[in-house]
Amino acid sequence: MSMPNTTALPAQMRFIDHGKGGAPDVLVVNQGPLPVPGADEVLIRVAYAGVNRPDVLQRSGNYPPPPGSSPLLGLEVSGEVVAVGAGVTQWKAGDKVCALTNGGGYAEFVAVPAGQVLPVPAGLSMLQAAALPETYFTVWANVFERGRLAAGETLLIHGGSSGIGTTAIQMAKAWGATVYVTVGNDDKARACVQDLGADHAINYRTHDFVAEISRLTGGKGVNEILDMVGGDYIARNLKCLALEGRLVQIAFLQPSKVDVDWMPLMLKRLTFTGSTLRARPAADKARLAGELLAKIWPHLAAGRMLPVINKVFDLAAAAEAHRTMESSEHIGKLMLKVAGD
Amino acid sequence: MSMPNTTALPAQMRFIDHGKGGAPDVLVVNQGPLPVPGADEVLIRVAYAGVNRPDVLQRSGNYPPPPGSSPLLGLEVSGEVVAVGAGVTQWKAGDKVCALTNGGGYAEFVAVPAGQVLPVPAGLSMLQAAALPETYFTVWANVFERGRLAAGETLLIHGGSSGIGTTAIQMAKAWGATVYVTVGNDDKARACVQDLGADHAINYRTHDFVAEISRLTGGKGVNEILDMVGGDYIARNLKCLALEGRLVQIAFLQPSKVDVDWMPLMLKRLTFTGSTLRARPAADKARLAGELLAKIWPHLAAGRMLPVINKVFDLAAAAEAHRTMESSEHIGKLMLKVAGD
Repeated sequence: MSMPNTTALPAQMRFIDHGKGGAPDVLVVNQGPLPVPGADEVLIRVAYAGVNRPDVLQRSGNYPPPPGSSPLLGLEVSGEVVAVGAGVTQWKAGDKVCALTNGGGYAEFVAVPAGQVLPVPAGLSMLQAAALPETYFTVWANVFERGRLAAGETLLIHGGSSGIGTTAIQMAKAWGATVYVTVGNDDKARACVQDLGADHAINYRTHDFVAEISRLTGGKGVNEILDMVGGDYIARNLKCLALEGRLVQIAFLQPSKVDVDWMPLMLKRLTFTGSTLRARPAADKARLAGELLAKIWPHLAAGRMLPVINKVFDLAAAAEAHRTMESSEHIGKLMLKVAGD
Repeated sequence: MSMPNTTALPAQMRFIDHGKGGAPDVLVVNQGPLPVPGADEVLIRVAYAGVNRPDVLQRSGNYPPPPGSSPLLGLEVSGEVVAVGAGVTQWKAGDKVCALTNGGGYAEFVAVPAGQVLPVPAGLSMLQAAALPETYFTVWANVFERGRLAAGETLLIHGGSSGIGTTAIQMAKAWGATVYVTVGNDDKARACVQDLGADHAINYRTHDFVAEISRLTGGKGVNEILDMVGGDYIARNLKCLALEGRLVQIAFLQPSKVDVDWMPLMLKRLTFTGSTLRARPAADKARLAGELLAKIWPHLAAGRMLPVINKVFDLAAAAEAHRTMESSEHIGKLMLKVAGD
């Protein structure tokens, strides 16, 4: 790797250790050697790292990282490139970037495949840039690629105020879709509609979303649903879909094993699909990065969409950030400050 | 409508009446007026009609025809155009055609939207032509459009010796796919492999198709499955699919309501979809006809695929044809002779 000529790298770094896993309190600061970037990787000095729900599952021991990835938590960062592997030509030391990591973002330094690195969009802060990769890659891959959302269509997003939800609302609106969301309280409903541009928010605690979607669409149903709930939402989602509708599953907060009648899938010519981001091969993540750079980064630079950041925690307060994530009371993204700006 | 100048049309025609529905014996010959073609329809003097499983469901009372379609049985015919509606320019009296009907094929005359009519492929008999529409439209719409089968991929077809199965084997092989089928006995296995070109047939009575597919694909699974069974096949199909695999459901011979764990759909980035042919709008059926004419009719004319016909019954023996269909002992299509050649 080529070393930057401005500052020497330290021998050790701080990182969040989740030990053998468990409740949020297992998260403690530890010291260890810096990761060594491979030939196709860059080493990033982390400014900020995003907290995502898969981190919570991994901390709990329910979501072991795929083979070959960092055992540490943290799927997205912003920061400065401080070294590049021998095969990397598109990045150099000193570049300000954000990146979808293969784990290891909760640390002062992280090594990331060069294809998963993107420039900080013009006009965005390092904090905002760190809030982009996980949700933007996920929404692009699922709502747009798998779900084929088209301008003029209708999209229902469950969990509208989550990191994924706030990103999906803005991307779908920029694409020319009509967007409905479900949320758990009226503050979240207001944020989704007034701040982010959703066309209507359904408080699922006070309203049946199946009846509401039927009412909002004049009985036709929506063209696509982005769901991270599963459980009894699956059969209810099938009822909400229009002819040729698509249901895209990106998580199961409720059980994935359910008793459902699939006749409507055939009769309405529906599509049920889904994906996780982390298990995709590096080439696929690099392809997604290229799509985002071409099709979505210009919207960010133009101010037509912006990550919604709820709260920034110090790296050492990762446990508190996880407790907040598990409370589901936040609107938008939870972030960790590492080196900062 | 413009009348043919060769022969006058009779005032009455024979058709198969299924009365109020029930067992095969309800099917009797009756007499009634000819259907009157609408502005965009042609009137066909039926040579042969195909028998399809949806006919059995409709006869039993379990599959009421969509609004606006003929109440009579029969979804495909071959024959001669004897009259055309005022808006029809592409067909004329005397044309030898086959057609996907909106019902009414079990009769001496049937009115069909002009967009659902196709020429008899060069070299095929009227009997062979009548055996094409239902399975060819279905396989094209499902295996190729919804399921996106590509050359070099692997396809598992359940019910390989059915009308749909025998068509799907030939179309997928012509497309350059590797084809596995499940069948209920060794005679059917031989027919699928030796006569139709399937790469391997699994007798589901003696072998577990999940284990067999794993063995045949070196543990990778298949890229696509065409299923008309449902029930406990759904979870087993998910096990058989490779990463990014597609499961396409075109019928439920077993229950459609099942308890299944959908986690593999997300983790393997699968797609579960399906459709019925009959419920599609006329414009969609016309589009499918155009695709078949351009992409599949040349293969038929070149002899690279041919419908597999098991047995031909007289129109008056429709009840016997239905009993045979329900026995599932046949290989290929069951046909009714109306005017004949």
